Amino acid sequence: MSDKKKIYKPKPISGYPEWLPQVRRVEQQWLDHIREVFESYGFCNIETPAVEALEVIAAKGEDVDKEIYVLERLQKEEGDKEARLALHFDQTVPLARYVGQHFNDLVFPFKRYQTQKVWRGERPQAGRFREFTQCDIDVINVDNLPLSLDAEMPKIIHEVLSGLDIPPFEIRISNRKILLGLLDYLEVRNKTEVTRIIDKIEKLSEDSIEQLLKEHGIDEADSSEILWLALCPDLDAVFPHNEMMQEGLEELQFVMDQLSHLPNVVADLSIVRGLDYYTGTVYETMFVDDPSYGSICSGGRYDDLASSYINKKLPGVGISIGFSRLFAKMHTQLDTGRISPADVLVILNSEDDRAAASEIADTLRKNGNAVELYHAPQKFSKQLSYAEKKGIPFVWMPPFGDTVEHKVKTMATGDQVEADYKDWKAADA
Amino acid sequence: MSDKKKIYKPKPISGYPEWLPQVRRVEQQWLDHIREVFESYGFCNIETPAVEALEVIAAKGEDVDKEIYVLERLQKEEGDKEARLALHFDQTVPLARYVGQHFNDLVFPFKRYQTQKVWRGERPQAGRFREFTQCDIDVINVDNLPLSLDAEMPKIIHEVLSGLDIPPFEIRISNRKILLGLLDYLEVRNKTEVTRIIDKIEKLSEDSIEQLLKEHGIDEADSSEILWLALCPDLDAVFPHNEMMQEGLEELQFVMDQLSHLPNVVADLSIVRGLDYYTGTVYETMFVDDPSYGSICSGGRYDDLASSYINKKLPGVGISIGFSRLFAKMHTQLDTGRISPADVLVILNSEDDRAAASEIADTLRKNGNAVELYHAPQKFSKQLSYAEKKGIPFVWMPPFGDTVEHKVKTMATGDQVEADYKDWKAADA
Repeated sequence: MSDKKKIYKPKPISGYPEWLPQVRRVEQQWLDHIREVFESYGFCNIETPAVEALEVIAAKGEDVDKEIYVLERLQKEEGDKEARLALHFDQTVPLARYVGQHFNDLVFPFKRYQTQKVWRGERPQAGRFREFTQCDIDVINVDNLPLSLDAEMPKIIHEVLSGLDIPPFEIRISNRKILLGLLDYLEVRNKTEVTRIIDKIEKLSEDSIEQLLKEHGIDEADSSEILWLALCPDLDAVFPHNEMMQEGLEELQFVMDQLSHLPNVVADLSIVRGLDYYTGTVYETMFVDDPSYGSICSGGRYDDLASSYINKKLPGVGISIGFSRLFAKMHTQLDTGRISPADVLVILNSEDDRAAASEIADTLRKNGNAVELYHAPQKFSKQLSYAEKKGIPFVWMPPFGDTVEHKVKTMATGDQVEADYKDWKAADA
Repeated sequence: MSDKKKIYKPKPISGYPEWLPQVRRVEQQWLDHIREVFESYGFCNIETPAVEALEVIAAKGEDVDKEIYVLERLQKEEGDKEARLALHFDQTVPLARYVGQHFNDLVFPFKRYQTQKVWRGERPQAGRFREFTQCDIDVINVDNLPLSLDAEMPKIIHEVLSGLDIPPFEIRISNRKILLGLLDYLEVRNKTEVTRIIDKIEKLSEDSIEQLLKEHGIDEADSSEILWLALCPDLDAVFPHNEMMQEGLEELQFVMDQLSHLPNVVADLSIVRGLDYYTGTVYETMFVDDPSYGSICSGGRYDDLASSYINKKLPGVGISIGFSRLFAKMHTQLDTGRISPADVLVILNSEDDRAAASEIADTLRKNGNAVELYHAPQKFSKQLSYAEKKGIPFVWMPPFGDTVEHKVKTMATGDQVEADYKDWKAADA
């Protein structure tokens, strides 16, 4: 071993967020809250491996605009034959594969939530994550799924987001059948491109949208009709030109009726989602004062989840919280300074007191407190300062010298009171 | 869309475990329990990205016997220059990098727990995981760290494992200074190889160990002295030939004295761990009736965590639960049949009753119950059978027809009683 050991000074990797313990603590509380709400509606949890066979990810055969990371074994030997593996880029493909693979072992409607990291191998660029956490809920059924579940999704998301410390938000809902019905009626051929243009309505001016539609061969009359629909604030004002539009309007009305008690859940016919995957209800969620931040929670109804993997009709509806984007926007305001989960730090007066201090700590723990025993018999002021730096709210002072009583100090106020460790609880203090 | 769509029938990927919801539910309970115990000792949580720069993983310069997965972007363009990224194969390297990178923002002693997946790109083979979860705790300090923390680690692990539904286990503790001191005294040169041979003592016969030692140039007299030490059941019987042995024996005695109240924590001088990384106390944990399963929880003391990344002396002590191996061994016995987290299923008598049923579900949820509202007004027997299949313990029956009272049915017994949804709690029922 030489003293001149080479030091590799680590740098953050672009796109891979990492938090200090006091921020991670808040992140855990957010994730706990989300889990609690999802479970309170009877959603079970699943977790799938971080990787899928590349064939699974490619099975959809869509234009893959997701950037995919494939794995290579560093020490791969020549001639090793194995499936190529890729990190999942969302939780929908793994869900579809999971349902296809375990179909006979699942009970339908299958209601599951899933909170995992996903990876996108994009070029590194500011503000884009390459690793991020998504919190998804989906309900899948065989053959058909009642529309009432389309209304349950935003209700759950409303409850989740209302419990987080975030700025005012708005859940916007539409039904793709309305716009697609109109495009049918107008005999527009390249519907996918047109819906993708309308999907940009939040970011672009009306003029730019018209220009883009024109470039895609939509004439002025059709273009204004499409734009009028997308921007129409009143469902009753929309004339259903065909059955598809009619169906979309009725479905959307049904969903909105069930959500009428939630003022920040609104119908918005410009919501179409870029993906052809969705066939009915679609959702987006915006910050009211910062819609340009984009949707923090999106999803919708699909007719056909897993037909790439199994010969069954499996309609579903789902919604996904872009957790990392949401948390990253807020995290600087969320640092409470509380690093340690400990409720109380037990002071160690001397090495001779260790057994007694350890017993106090154990008893306090049995009472339901999280307890740290200070690691060394250092000066009292140093131990206090440690509690302060770690944000531990109480300090337990066992007797020392001639004293016989135990005292507990509340760090926020400096107050000290006598207490009995046999029945003390931080929650009551 | 053609009806003859190609179906890719998904298969499990060797080494990547995945559970059905009812097993995942138990896995979550285990992970919750582990988190609760870790936090009750004041350990904070961190999470690091799944990837590190390849230089970071390679910085230790040790013989890398871990198989590493590197990432390749599927759509990488020519000329893209970026750091090569690799999936972490443990949580110790990321911890060292994290401490080096965030040193100025951390409060020491830094006590952290970390529960994440890690990946090893091994050749696929039966019983070997390539993705698995580890639960680590470590305490790191600057310059020095009291030995009492070496005793706290197995105490915590004892509490964790005692709370899980697993067969009897035994935590075995030694101190590497004892064996290394003896090897010094015997002037053995290839200590690393010899410790790795002793590390196999659980799996091989005494004869095989002697044979291996002989092959590594250890003569018969030395070989028996080494074996005698490794198998010696009594610390007091060991004669300290030098200071290092003396120190090791004293440290081990100190640790064992603090754990004397735990009968299944034992000193075992054959425990050395294969890694040169450890410098003092070392731990392994075996099933009493199946030691050949190998260690389910291991760790030890190290002098120097992060000197590859920062010019500081950072000693620490840590222990890691091989969660996936432990859980996978048990999982077939752990299926409780409870798929849904819902405490109660609310029956939907008819579409007209939906608003009322939904209000009942909401109120029950506000009372602290997890509640599923059945999705469609199907036959009562079908709704009951759904509750049974998902393992939902109670069924709420709102009034129907001429009845006015609400009833709740306990699925396990079939009992039905009148109840008021405004204050009903599953926990009390």
